[in-house]
Amino acid sequence: MSESPFPARQCALARELARLDLHALAVVPGASLMYLTGLDFHLSERPTVAFFRQHGAPVFIIPELEGGKLDGFPVDICVCTYGEDPAIWPEAFREAARAGGLDGQRVGIESGSMRVLELRMLQEAMPGSTYPDGHEALAALRICKDAHEIEKMRKAIRVAENAMRDTLSAIAPGITEQEVASRLTARLLGAGCAPELPFPPIVAFGSSSANPHAVPGNRALRSGDLILCDWGANVEGYFSDMTRMFSYGDPGNDVRHIVEVVEHARHAAEQVAGPGVSASGVDRAARAVIEKAGFGERFVHRTGHGVGLEIHEAPYIRGGNPVLLRPGMTFTIEPGIYLTGVAGARIEDIVAVTEDSVDTLTTLPRELVDISAR
Amino acid sequence: MSESPFPARQCALARELARLDLHALAVVPGASLMYLTGLDFHLSERPTVAFFRQHGAPVFIIPELEGGKLDGFPVDICVCTYGEDPAIWPEAFREAARAGGLDGQRVGIESGSMRVLELRMLQEAMPGSTYPDGHEALAALRICKDAHEIEKMRKAIRVAENAMRDTLSAIAPGITEQEVASRLTARLLGAGCAPELPFPPIVAFGSSSANPHAVPGNRALRSGDLILCDWGANVEGYFSDMTRMFSYGDPGNDVRHIVEVVEHARHAAEQVAGPGVSASGVDRAARAVIEKAGFGERFVHRTGHGVGLEIHEAPYIRGGNPVLLRPGMTFTIEPGIYLTGVAGARIEDIVAVTEDSVDTLTTLPRELVDISAR
Repeated sequence: MSESPFPARQCALARELARLDLHALAVVPGASLMYLTGLDFHLSERPTVAFFRQHGAPVFIIPELEGGKLDGFPVDICVCTYGEDPAIWPEAFREAARAGGLDGQRVGIESGSMRVLELRMLQEAMPGSTYPDGHEALAALRICKDAHEIEKMRKAIRVAENAMRDTLSAIAPGITEQEVASRLTARLLGAGCAPELPFPPIVAFGSSSANPHAVPGNRALRSGDLILCDWGANVEGYFSDMTRMFSYGDPGNDVRHIVEVVEHARHAAEQVAGPGVSASGVDRAARAVIEKAGFGERFVHRTGHGVGLEIHEAPYIRGGNPVLLRPGMTFTIEPGIYLTGVAGARIEDIVAVTEDSVDTLTTLPRELVDISAR
Repeated sequence: MSESPFPARQCALARELARLDLHALAVVPGASLMYLTGLDFHLSERPTVAFFRQHGAPVFIIPELEGGKLDGFPVDICVCTYGEDPAIWPEAFREAARAGGLDGQRVGIESGSMRVLELRMLQEAMPGSTYPDGHEALAALRICKDAHEIEKMRKAIRVAENAMRDTLSAIAPGITEQEVASRLTARLLGAGCAPELPFPPIVAFGSSSANPHAVPGNRALRSGDLILCDWGANVEGYFSDMTRMFSYGDPGNDVRHIVEVVEHARHAAEQVAGPGVSASGVDRAARAVIEKAGFGERFVHRTGHGVGLEIHEAPYIRGGNPVLLRPGMTFTIEPGIYLTGVAGARIEDIVAVTEDSVDTLTTLPRELVDISAR
């Protein structure tokens, strides 16, 4: 067993807070709380807020009902709980303010995850404080994964790949997108995926694949259909995310062509990526291939996104993003071409930046696979 | 086919906005947007906001990538889109402000779902507006379900019940909580549950059942163990939620006793509930039974919560809540007794308020079932 990583992470956060002149960072349930404590709380109508301070123990505001989750927690915490009546919740916030010396301070928040509900309760309990966005404090730590984190992501990729292998055998004309998605989800859970999937699988047949965020529908598979699958797994809170293209029979030359172009674009981005390269440089490498093939206008999204405890996180691999890649960063490379009303193609891997290039964690073959030939 | 309910719902919202003197209500992806439009958007790092106004068509701010979801939408909408670079997002917000005449107005928000990210972008684009909490406008509409909505919830209950019947046969000594939860989830999806479960199933053996929000772990089932399962399904966006108690062999007299007390409490609350009765009155009926049995201190949560497009919504069935029940309200009745370190018991049904009482939608037997005897 490795040692608990949480004390060191909280310590590193304290240094970031000092750098940003923040007295504390207020964190709600989700990826950041998991990163700092391993605690799996959920957003609900009952507010939960944890304050990690430059100095001193973290201060938690939680519903009484969730108190059990903190039993045996290995780090000193100051816990303020409240009962079921919302009228008494503000007192727990005031208690936390007193315990943490939080009023009159710069208290950073993560505006992409904290709700207005929590912010307004903070403002009421600590009217003298300001609440600048402090997501950068943790983002700076979370963006580079250590070996243990990458190993969990590798496992999440294996689970996803195994689940797909077990799903393909069931795909035959007449099956619907929803049925494939349900079967894939069941196989993910059977293969070791945690109960909360990173996102519901996308399964799109034929022209539905031209919608980058298609929702599986009642469309039944026909011979000659292209099949786009975009799915992921969750292992110990770490996510995988991948897209592969299949067909049932021959989808035609034009469709095969766009899949090939997309694969060339993915390969070009993978070759360029490495430490010291900018996120926009990786995007440009993929985009150049697709533009040269005449589909530049049809590549309607960024080339990729960071992934880890969240399915979309920094670094974002898009034009204009100057962030330089560093060892430990993990992100998707997923160029796509979308021909509205006809077909769409996307191929998506996860790579981890190494000391001199990238390690492509995804292993499933990337060519268009005709599953009728199996 | 019934007619689309969305124009009438938007119209009813406009009347609520007039009553609350709100120019518009700003809604983010989730249950409220689904209720008003049927659109299944997701919260992501890219902000999506829809403004429903007292007068005029709704105004949407969405990522370009999601534009396809609005194709063929049957109601007039003004759509402002933005691309991948966050630097240009504020312009889409300013465009929406101009299109909707939103600046300088009272713009209601739902503080329990909107993030600080969206609020701050609104404040920047519409600095002359105020942003009071306006969740009451929609909550007033959503709290009473029509016959179509109740039918969907009934289906979600059937799906959940069928999935459990198919899961029980696999439960035998040695199986872990996680394995049962995975199998149950797979069965839910196979039985017709939509890919996004209302929540991951809770499966707790033995003393783990004493934690009301237990997370399934690696504990293996032993003969004589009590088994608590709390699970639900999603059918067309509507949720079910139920809890049942099983055992493998005889869990002992004390455990059987608390299960019986909880069932008496549930029955008492069901008998009392009906139109004109307060939420606190229903809570009191359940709590009185448990207090009389000497376990008052061990019933650590409210008696229930509303359920529909969200797993927890109004009406909350708790002490101190004066809300009077009305026909169409749907909520859980789920008293519990939790003996830390020993065992916990909870039995949970969903009821719909009728013209003169309640209709209990859940049908699975409520007694403690010894599955070793099957």
